[in-house]
Amino acid sequence: ILIVVRRFIVVYAWRATRTLWLLVLVSLSVCICVCRASSPQEDSAMENIVTEKKAEESHRQDSADLLIFILLLTLTILTIWLFKHRRFRFLHETGLAMIYGLLVGVVLRYGIHVPRDISNATLGCPVNASPATLLINVSGKFYEYTLKGEINANEVDNVQDNEMLRKVTFDPEVFFNILLPPIIFHAGYSLKRRHFFRNMGSILAYAFLGTVISCFVIGLLMYGCVMLMKQVGQLGGDFFFTDCLFFGAIVSATDPVTVLAIFNELQVDVDLYALLFGESVLNDAVALVLSSSIVAYQPQGDNSHTFEGTAMLKSFGIFLGVFSGSFALGVATGIVTALISFFTKLRDFQLLETALFFLMSWSTFLLAEACGFTGVVAVLFCGITQAHYTFNNLSPDSQDRTKQLFELLNFLAENFIFSYMGLTLFTFQNHVFNPMFIVGAFVAVFLGRAANIYPLSFLLNLGRRNKIRSNFQHMMMFAGLRGAMTFALSIRDTATYARQMMFSTTLLVVFFTVWICGGGTTQMLSCQRIRVGVDSDQDNSVSVITEGPERRSTKQESAWLFRIWYNFDHNYLKPILTHSGPPLTATLPPCCGPLARFLTSPQAYENECQLKDDDSDLILTDGDINLTYGDITVSTDASGAHTSGGAAFAGAATSDDLDRELTYGDHELVMRGTRLVLPMDDSEPPFTGRPRRTVPTRTDPSHRANRPVPDTPSFTVSHPASLLFLYRHVSLPLVATHCLYLILVLLLSTPFWHLPLIVI
Amino acid sequence: ILIVVRRFIVVYAWRATRTLWLLVLVSLSVCICVCRASSPQEDSAMENIVTEKKAEESHRQDSADLLIFILLLTLTILTIWLFKHRRFRFLHETGLAMIYGLLVGVVLRYGIHVPRDISNATLGCPVNASPATLLINVSGKFYEYTLKGEINANEVDNVQDNEMLRKVTFDPEVFFNILLPPIIFHAGYSLKRRHFFRNMGSILAYAFLGTVISCFVIGLLMYGCVMLMKQVGQLGGDFFFTDCLFFGAIVSATDPVTVLAIFNELQVDVDLYALLFGESVLNDAVALVLSSSIVAYQPQGDNSHTFEGTAMLKSFGIFLGVFSGSFALGVATGIVTALISFFTKLRDFQLLETALFFLMSWSTFLLAEACGFTGVVAVLFCGITQAHYTFNNLSPDSQDRTKQLFELLNFLAENFIFSYMGLTLFTFQNHVFNPMFIVGAFVAVFLGRAANIYPLSFLLNLGRRNKIRSNFQHMMMFAGLRGAMTFALSIRDTATYARQMMFSTTLLVVFFTVWICGGGTTQMLSCQRIRVGVDSDQDNSVSVITEGPERRSTKQESAWLFRIWYNFDHNYLKPILTHSGPPLTATLPPCCGPLARFLTSPQAYENECQLKDDDSDLILTDGDINLTYGDITVSTDASGAHTSGGAAFAGAATSDDLDRELTYGDHELVMRGTRLVLPMDDSEPPFTGRPRRTVPTRTDPSHRANRPVPDTPSFTVSHPASLLFLYRHVSLPLVATHCLYLILVLLLSTPFWHLPLIVI
Repeated sequence: ILIVVRRFIVVYAWRATRTLWLLVLVSLSVCICVCRASSPQEDSAMENIVTEKKAEESHRQDSADLLIFILLLTLTILTIWLFKHRRFRFLHETGLAMIYGLLVGVVLRYGIHVPRDISNATLGCPVNASPATLLINVSGKFYEYTLKGEINANEVDNVQDNEMLRKVTFDPEVFFNILLPPIIFHAGYSLKRRHFFRNMGSILAYAFLGTVISCFVIGLLMYGCVMLMKQVGQLGGDFFFTDCLFFGAIVSATDPVTVLAIFNELQVDVDLYALLFGESVLNDAVALVLSSSIVAYQPQGDNSHTFEGTAMLKSFGIFLGVFSGSFALGVATGIVTALISFFTKLRDFQLLETALFFLMSWSTFLLAEACGFTGVVAVLFCGITQAHYTFNNLSPDSQDRTKQLFELLNFLAENFIFSYMGLTLFTFQNHVFNPMFIVGAFVAVFLGRAANIYPLSFLLNLGRRNKIRSNFQHMMMFAGLRGAMTFALSIRDTATYARQMMFSTTLLVVFFTVWICGGGTTQMLSCQRIRVGVDSDQDNSVSVITEGPERRSTKQESAWLFRIWYNFDHNYLKPILTHSGPPLTATLPPCCGPLARFLTSPQAYENECQLKDDDSDLILTDGDINLTYGDITVSTDASGAHTSGGAAFAGAATSDDLDRELTYGDHELVMRGTRLVLPMDDSEPPFTGRPRRTVPTRTDPSHRANRPVPDTPSFTVSHPASLLFLYRHVSLPLVATHCLYLILVLLLSTPFWHLPLIVI
Repeated sequence: ILIVVRRFIVVYAWRATRTLWLLVLVSLSVCICVCRASSPQEDSAMENIVTEKKAEESHRQDSADLLIFILLLTLTILTIWLFKHRRFRFLHETGLAMIYGLLVGVVLRYGIHVPRDISNATLGCPVNASPATLLINVSGKFYEYTLKGEINANEVDNVQDNEMLRKVTFDPEVFFNILLPPIIFHAGYSLKRRHFFRNMGSILAYAFLGTVISCFVIGLLMYGCVMLMKQVGQLGGDFFFTDCLFFGAIVSATDPVTVLAIFNELQVDVDLYALLFGESVLNDAVALVLSSSIVAYQPQGDNSHTFEGTAMLKSFGIFLGVFSGSFALGVATGIVTALISFFTKLRDFQLLETALFFLMSWSTFLLAEACGFTGVVAVLFCGITQAHYTFNNLSPDSQDRTKQLFELLNFLAENFIFSYMGLTLFTFQNHVFNPMFIVGAFVAVFLGRAANIYPLSFLLNLGRRNKIRSNFQHMMMFAGLRGAMTFALSIRDTATYARQMMFSTTLLVVFFTVWICGGGTTQMLSCQRIRVGVDSDQDNSVSVITEGPERRSTKQESAWLFRIWYNFDHNYLKPILTHSGPPLTATLPPCCGPLARFLTSPQAYENECQLKDDDSDLILTDGDINLTYGDITVSTDASGAHTSGGAAFAGAATSDDLDRELTYGDHELVMRGTRLVLPMDDSEPPFTGRPRRTVPTRTDPSHRANRPVPDTPSFTVSHPASLLFLYRHVSLPLVATHCLYLILVLLLSTPFWHLPLIVI
């Protein structure tokens, strides 16, 4: 009976859940209709206060519009919970948000008819300027108006017709000033730093060189396409080479949030993850600055779209200036925050600490914008700096708080952008869907990504010991999704014909890549036989076993770029900016003794600094254990006694070890195993929350080799049985959903495909 | 040497901190100047794209303006940390934020001269309407303008002069739509529910009756004052009786955030805390709705400011309708959220859960606004409902997350409002400081508060067994600070002369009460000999000892209003909406068996529900233990077996006990002590985080009586030695600061005091 009752309840709960969804959907549509319908009617009593009423009306409308988005997000959350609950992996929350956005867009566009709004008036009287603020004298009363923007002459009638659709259209600057900053900051703040720094050279190459290559390849291809269109007579307006390059720049910003979520869930190879994540984080910044410097390309003279050397150089200068300026600003604010949290004992008051952290990070954005740099880029580097330095000074409680806060903001902003994307396919007024351009764009995007990944990987492989294998390259190629940044850049300016065509095309590119490429990730992983179920903490040790000497040699590979900086960072910056790290007295040369004592945190002396596992996250496999050694020596002595001598020894030993490692390399592992790591395990305090790499498993190879694979869902795809498992569980619904997507996309875009053809 | 080094470091850290503050201050003023100065100059290359440039310019300006506020908040945080660190209690963060706001206001007003902005143009041509959107044809190009508001005819010149000052003036609706909702929601979400419900009757009386009384008393007094001013000839414009009532309404919203913070820190008597907090939370809502229904008072006929019965009835109807509508909406969304979190297993995904909680709470606000109700009121009741039901369904992680999130939002919004208050004293353009009106207002506010507290307390004491003593009454009188809500209401509409005078006066009232009353809280506590250092959990048991039979009888007192609802809530609502509480099968009559089984959460059967201490927080002292009994019975059986019989017994016993208690009252304590509580202590699981009242200390009076007072700073003021201590540590700096405040206020307001006198 009990089991029956339970099953009954479960079934009931399911039904109730579904009813709830229906309820939310119904309430959503009712709210859309009611709020729009009810607002013009009531309130007949106070007809005299016209302005006030109007303002109130418009406020209600705004609330209703915002409410639609909030309910959309709620719906997305509920559905995504269902998907996670049932372990559906072929539709990410962002893809789902887009679908819901599309549906609401259809309702808004075709389902609701708002009576023609007569409150707009076109002023005919001659004005010879367009000031930012306008005062209008209406029979003795002055009204103030603010400039919203220019409107195409042929849309003036449209404006009056589609007041409602224009209401749900946000000011594009909202994306840059409100929604993108938390997303980008979160990306910087949550960079998996150990693997990021290990692959820093490759990531920088992909992000900088790769984005530029991709931008120019796409730009050139699109220029060819546009030329062809001009020949055929399909082009309805101007489309210059700079426009093509601009399109290349905005479409080069990849955002594989869907893929990364699946990678995270399936625990795909950490190097691949780091490469993809690092590239996507940085190339957003590159694409943003690149596109703004392309816009700034303004040759002098009559024809403003010819090639001119000085103008190009100026554009290049702008690129460098804006990028480095934003970088410097972001890092500077990060360091200021670290200093503040270092010198004040704010950690006793978590609320103040969290608030300060939030405000300082936000002020980075505002400062950069106020100085004419790019706020989003500054915020990215601020995030990385905060994670690297400030995070170590925060109390454990604040560490959690800040992480969770930005995680939430990121989640909300991201889903909002994607659902808005879906909505805007129908509510945007000036779509220009040109089939030829769209096909050309898809080809160009594909080729541009290929021209980014394959040649660069080939070149990088010449230098890398730990090669980027061809299946990784294919996966990176496949994971070139376009997302929030591309959308925000393309919607920022939709004034001209060229920009409108770009916007519509970009929208389709985003839809296609997020749904098809995002949905096909698991299948692609199995196709490319990429190992999944890799515990990122076990990864290194396992690979030492399986790949033997080849593996061990990789530790040298990333060293040349990074080791010098790391040494400087660990020995000088960390002690100055954070409470972790060795005291400066140990790392500075003896002649600087007084200065070192002056600058060193009391905590470093008193050995109150706790072992931060982020500290060890940062470092290469081998330097890592060195650092662990240094830190643990400090933390095991934490009984309260004065051990400045011991700490000095630890610091000295660390730099000593790094030197030795550079020379002897291969002997390190054994040395460390016998010398330091084993006795430390007992004294290590139980660390809160996140699982920590236990040191002994690494030092004892035989023990490690015999350990069974952890029993989390860690099926390696190369094994035929688990491959079968993957196919059985994933393929069928996957294929079905793909078909559905295709039909949906085709159905949705049909009216638009016809429209331009009919018009032309 | 070590000690010397340490002291040296501490001193150094202090200096560094001070340097940092200087740095922040300097960077703030530099940023103010540079951002303003630099923006008009550079960028000479692209003069052709005028509109774009202008938009960019204005965006930069906005960023700089916002940056000023962010840096102000940062400064406030740093200073408040210093105050907390040094245990200064006479200046709360909100008071400090106001001071900093004042300073920046002075700098903006007198320190910076912006060249006359020529970008504004007054349109002379005749328009006979003021539409919401305006299209202007400038030599073939169409520009769109949106209506910002009406401007007084005599300010048209001002507008062009003080463009910069107007830039830092926010749209007043920002307060209602962005800043107030998180503050009010947090207040609802963090209501100390046990003591709130224990004093519910009194709180409701103070909040509803008291606010109405206060509103009318202040309104009448101000009307007298205005009449007098008219006689003397000091009135420069219209000032109707409705204006006086409106002033009474907005000034009746108390916000003793400063006082409550000190109460919390000093652990003042929980009943006093509950009374003050509950009153302040609810009377914000009452004052808001009251003011809007006073504005809606529109008698028909020629003279729109005479008394008319029907119009007043209509206003009263609006009050009731808006209040109950907002209440119903808030509670409904709260219940929907509870249902969603009840039926879906969202708690497995904390991020989704937190996001859902946040979105649903926000959508309450939007829904209420879209439907024409008051969003802030809806959000308040939504917060209370969420805390009461949804909170129990959240995972522990999400419980922390949501609390911390709203705590942070509340902190930021509150300090932002208070610093803006300081700023606006100087940057607001249309201050009308009328000495007579100001003096009248201060007297009226004082008398209004007195007419609220003393008569109501007298009436309530007739019904209450646990009297509100006269020192409590004096303290409540003293703690009638005015804060964020009063300010937001008064700045909402500053179009007419009357409203401008009200706004200026309100500002002074807020400054005075926050600084003087807020700063004098500790002194007032010692004056009134109010016990501090009361552990809220020990309070009940201690008072049983000290006050003997008188105390024990209080348990009956709040019962008549609350017990029926509580019974219903605990037996029916809680099981339906949350996973805690007894299963419905136990509480519903047997005839409803199938329905009960249908609706009961599986957790309730499986006894997976954990013992929520919020559940016991809610209930009266005695019912409390009954409930604890019921819950513990469930939780001790949590080994997994099916104990629906046992749970049924618990549920029956609970309602049984409640009945019996109503009859026998006094025997309860002993009965429970022997019967249930002692054996449970061993099996009680260690609860995470918050300290829990341990049950045995309550059941064994002798043990309790012998226990020493906890060694936290719990000095009772009635003891002469500790009184001396309080005076020695508090009085001198307190008096000094008060003098400083007074001088500051006088100095700051002098130009304004002179101004109207000179003008008149």
